[in-house]
Amino acid sequence: MEETVLITGGAGYIASHVIVELLENNYTVIALDNLRHYYSVNQSEKPECIKRIEQLTGKVVPFYKADISDQSALRNIFKLHKIDVVIHMAALTDVSESIKTPLTYYSNNVVSSITLFEVMKDFNIKKLIFSSSSNVFGTPQVLPVSEDHLTGIRCTNPYGRSKFFVEEILRNVCESDENWQVVVLRYFNPAGAHKSGLIGQNPFGVPNNLIPCIMQVAEGQKERVTVYGSDYDTKDGTCSKDFTHITDIATGHVKALEKLKKLCAENWVAYNLGTGQGYTILEVIEVFSKTINRKIPYEIVNRRKGDLGNIFADITKAKRELNWMPTKTIVDICTDAWKWHSQNRKSNK
Amino acid sequence: MEETVLITGGAGYIASHVIVELLENNYTVIALDNLRHYYSVNQSEKPECIKRIEQLTGKVVPFYKADISDQSALRNIFKLHKIDVVIHMAALTDVSESIKTPLTYYSNNVVSSITLFEVMKDFNIKKLIFSSSSNVFGTPQVLPVSEDHLTGIRCTNPYGRSKFFVEEILRNVCESDENWQVVVLRYFNPAGAHKSGLIGQNPFGVPNNLIPCIMQVAEGQKERVTVYGSDYDTKDGTCSKDFTHITDIATGHVKALEKLKKLCAENWVAYNLGTGQGYTILEVIEVFSKTINRKIPYEIVNRRKGDLGNIFADITKAKRELNWMPTKTIVDICTDAWKWHSQNRKSNK
Repeated sequence: MEETVLITGGAGYIASHVIVELLENNYTVIALDNLRHYYSVNQSEKPECIKRIEQLTGKVVPFYKADISDQSALRNIFKLHKIDVVIHMAALTDVSESIKTPLTYYSNNVVSSITLFEVMKDFNIKKLIFSSSSNVFGTPQVLPVSEDHLTGIRCTNPYGRSKFFVEEILRNVCESDENWQVVVLRYFNPAGAHKSGLIGQNPFGVPNNLIPCIMQVAEGQKERVTVYGSDYDTKDGTCSKDFTHITDIATGHVKALEKLKKLCAENWVAYNLGTGQGYTILEVIEVFSKTINRKIPYEIVNRRKGDLGNIFADITKAKRELNWMPTKTIVDICTDAWKWHSQNRKSNK
Repeated sequence: MEETVLITGGAGYIASHVIVELLENNYTVIALDNLRHYYSVNQSEKPECIKRIEQLTGKVVPFYKADISDQSALRNIFKLHKIDVVIHMAALTDVSESIKTPLTYYSNNVVSSITLFEVMKDFNIKKLIFSSSSNVFGTPQVLPVSEDHLTGIRCTNPYGRSKFFVEEILRNVCESDENWQVVVLRYFNPAGAHKSGLIGQNPFGVPNNLIPCIMQVAEGQKERVTVYGSDYDTKDGTCSKDFTHITDIATGHVKALEKLKKLCAENWVAYNLGTGQGYTILEVIEVFSKTINRKIPYEIVNRRKGDLGNIFADITKAKRELNWMPTKTIVDICTDAWKWHSQNRKSNK
């Protein structure tokens, strides 16, 4: 039977790619988003990315503009649709901003999550996929980082800590009620865009993620890429991260939905979605430069608060238990991101 | 200059004793409580404990019946009074209940705290004493437990984890804004009552704390004390805890208020309020039995989820930096608790 999935933060970068994969795998998808990062949306219209998803897939995605902290809006959606599973992606995700305004982050990422879970409980909807992050590990003590690595201890920013808190809250919820079934997906630096060039990462204001920054420089909007720190314990001293293609991240959700149907005694389970390989900032700049055949100037400045330094995932568990495997490379990430960026330079909707 | 202190959870067991100490040290106190655990209060009246505090001290304590999750009620209080410091005690505190209903605990203890901190920030009130618990340490890895002991990792219950979350949120808030000044007090099993016998612990429903349980048995309301577990790594195999007299806990708050005036670079600081000595459940039953010269029957059953097993505090830091010292013994705890209980058997207000 076809399942109905509610996605919170449904107009976001990761969610839009997940929705495409779900629709292609015959799930019915309802999207919910407060559209805080969509500054030019006509209130009566669906956001541009949802319209494009519908164009891409030929399917309809019911969309609600609402904040998950709004209990009555949530209740309304749960009354109107028979939801089977919730994929909870709504969150603020800017690491640097989270250091400056921690209460805003805890309020948006933790308080709202609790509201959502309470409403889900009231409607007896107890299947959930939670969008978590490699940031829950903090600065890793061993590499690669497996799911068993300690979480929460050496978190370098409130964003990561807010994800850790929600993971733990869900763990306790699962311990208290065996009917809850939760899959936690810990993303390692989602990057790139859909191969169609129709959907991708649309940062509001100044981008904080590397690839959007590189693209701004590539097209002359900015003079050079700022590289934070060159004294990390990595190949060239710059931060090293495990960049994962957004489409691989998206297929991980289809696999997680299948896993949710088979969870038994262990009703809270976490998986790393990464590639298992790290690239330094300078390496990514070089790959990007070669991919588009342009020079990408950069400048090295001091370390930035909140960065992890060096991290890459152990993905053995996701391979084994989800039957999931990343298929795209760092070159694919650069190619697809650039295609998206080039095709959508003007339409910042 | 006389400072004005707002106490959340102001009608609670610990708060009522803190208020007495503050009034005796010339602080002005405003109390706020949702009175959820006062089931027989006339809405127009102050709760019994506040009336008794006023009787005891000859001073007036403005009281507001409100929940800290109610932003507008909070704003109203901050508008009406010039608050200098907030002592944040409002919380649900039943370990066993927290395991059964984690969302309720996270909502009450974490969500409400964030609401309070946001309102404080809006009113530029950034001095806070936070009521935390030895439960943040989880099952200790070394004894005695100093403030540097890892927190959050081996928490055995959502209650303790909710306290850990709020500690960390406050730590991030202090990192983001040097004007915040926060003292975290980690209580080790507050017990006993005010020497007057006028205020004490008034559990709603079935008491979960040891001393109230013992007293129910002592007066024949219950047949025997249930002792959870006899296979812990302690003297006699029963749980061992660091019981701290409620008046010592209360004076710790006066010391913490003095400390708040002197905080500089380090604007988030935690202190253990304990005695530095553990007593097993069986030892406490025996001391109580001798104190009141009655037999206290007990039965040993299986371990209870959420218990810590064996914990006692290293209080070197509180002695050194707060100039605080516990002055009361386990015998004082039993004597004073019994006095309170005997004098108030009928008036469950």
